[in-house]
Amino acid sequence: MSNAPLLSLLLTLVEAAATLAFALSGLLEAARKRLDAVGVCLVAGLAAFGGGTLRDVLLDRRPFFWVSHSEWLWALLAVCAGAMLFLRAHHFAPTERAMQWPDALGLGLFSASGTQLALAEGLPGIVAVLMGVITATFGGVLRDIVCNEVPTALRDHRPYAICAFAGSWALVLAQHAGMAAVPALVLGAACATGLRVLALLTGYTLPRWSSGDEP
Amino acid sequence: MSNAPLLSLLLTLVEAAATLAFALSGLLEAARKRLDAVGVCLVAGLAAFGGGTLRDVLLDRRPFFWVSHSEWLWALLAVCAGAMLFLRAHHFAPTERAMQWPDALGLGLFSASGTQLALAEGLPGIVAVLMGVITATFGGVLRDIVCNEVPTALRDHRPYAICAFAGSWALVLAQHAGMAAVPALVLGAACATGLRVLALLTGYTLPRWSSGDEP
Amino acid sequence: MSNAPLLSLLLTLVEAAATLAFALSGLLEAARKRLDAVGVCLVAGLAAFGGGTLRDVLLDRRPFFWVSHSEWLWALLAVCAGAMLFLRAHHFAPTERAMQWPDALGLGLFSASGTQLALAEGLPGIVAVLMGVITATFGGVLRDIVCNEVPTALRDHRPYAICAFAGSWALVLAQHAGMAAVPALVLGAACATGLRVLALLTGYTLPRWSSGDEP
Repeated sequence: MSNAPLLSLLLTLVEAAATLAFALSGLLEAARKRLDAVGVCLVAGLAAFGGGTLRDVLLDRRPFFWVSHSEWLWALLAVCAGAMLFLRAHHFAPTERAMQWPDALGLGLFSASGTQLALAEGLPGIVAVLMGVITATFGGVLRDIVCNEVPTALRDHRPYAICAFAGSWALVLAQHAGMAAVPALVLGAACATGLRVLALLTGYTLPRWSSGDEP
Repeated sequence: MSNAPLLSLLLTLVEAAATLAFALSGLLEAARKRLDAVGVCLVAGLAAFGGGTLRDVLLDRRPFFWVSHSEWLWALLAVCAGAMLFLRAHHFAPTERAMQWPDALGLGLFSASGTQLALAEGLPGIVAVLMGVITATFGGVLRDIVCNEVPTALRDHRPYAICAFAGSWALVLAQHAGMAAVPALVLGAACATGLRVLALLTGYTLPRWSSGDEP
Repeated sequence: MSNAPLLSLLLTLVEAAATLAFALSGLLEAARKRLDAVGVCLVAGLAAFGGGTLRDVLLDRRPFFWVSHSEWLWALLAVCAGAMLFLRAHHFAPTERAMQWPDALGLGLFSASGTQLALAEGLPGIVAVLMGVITATFGGVLRDIVCNEVPTALRDHRPYAICAFAGSWALVLAQHAGMAAVPALVLGAACATGLRVLALLTGYTLPRWSSGDEP
């Protein structure tokens, strides 16, 4: 794989940006759920590090992102403290829609980095894609489970995990077609985030059960 | 342990059958919950691979079943796609009862394979039994948690985990009594599944709290 | 680190006491939820071993406490059986308040042991603190998730995880200040449990959202 140092730097940056994006989504959901200050930090942390940590446990990778870059735990605490002060000061009631944009960004970044890491370990394409999807979705799934909701990723019929699925496949196929790791990573992330944003803007929904009785 | 290759082949087949059985149960529950297509696949996958993967994480075994046999991920996707088309075509509303039979099969197969693997690692009997119970029940537990229900295994007073418990003990005691691994595996699986089927047919329920106010 | 054997013995005792305390809390919640006998044992086990096991998975420590001391699984079964007989005989309806005291004890003991173990692995202070908080809170979080509730640790505005947080920091700072491992461990545990008990007695609650609409 060409220029490994650049790739690993890029992976770190991507992971960091996605982490921040998901922390924000977890923070907003915890605020909507009116959890206490501790709950907000824990849910934000779970949303931020949950997907990546689960992926690392499954891939048996150590140390975790948040262990080798423990300054990110400080950053998370700072973000949560700042956001709670802001929310309180501005009587700002975060909406579910407000969570969608950081979520979409994190979705693309995490799915690409997860897939890339699995490919680098020589796992088969489908497993790499699954790792990408897990990395991208399980932060949010854990966030929703802890908040005692059916995870958005599974419930709302808007495409979510499927965007990560498509983006991860784009990355896998691009690399199999001989593209270098870095552009493939960018391609996969752009593809996943782009599809998600497109789905949000067009309001496209997945086909329902014919006997569907959803609202 | 005698005829290891036959045993490992048998373990693979057993794991595969149980995986399919649980995938089906997850798929039916996801359909009942009216999750979207992605949710159906993720819940089916969680039910199918969750218990075995948790066991492997606890035993620190790598690679996972679904990594070394990644064709099973394809099979899972195919099963989900096929089942969704079938359900849609037939306006078939899956009932909770429909889930019981694949569940009972998976219960026996997973508890036996989980216990066998733990014994093969030289763990004490009680730990091996616990691994069997975890393998057998946690796919379903995770399935129910994600679907935001109190897991059936803990809630309904019909014997479930306790069948896996009994079957696992049968396997452990049979091996301590000197029975070969393969017949012991079959014995344990048959015992667990048999007890579960018996419980379903007779409608036997575990004793309730004396102040029990269940329906 | 001075007198390692004494420390490891102490850690084992602390872990055992905390395990028992959390098992009791899980048992009481399962009883309140009217789970069946199996559910009671599984929830008690999850509450007892969940936090420590998650910590060990994250730290990649093997064998688990309940594998190397499998007699504790027997003890758990005995405790559950005894408690269920007791509850049934005495028509005793456990209250949420009844769970608070074992919980407070387990909170301190687990946060201290978790932090200590992470420090012994040379992890940075913030990660060690996080491990302490995870060890102390995730048994309860998993217990509540399985019982399909928003975890108490995140929801009720009474200080809980934050006591573990403070106690863990006390331990970390005491060791950085050169205190021996054993007194530091005792200090951390006492600090966390003391804060929790104080919070319970005074009924102090964390500041709410200004637009808070809690009961």
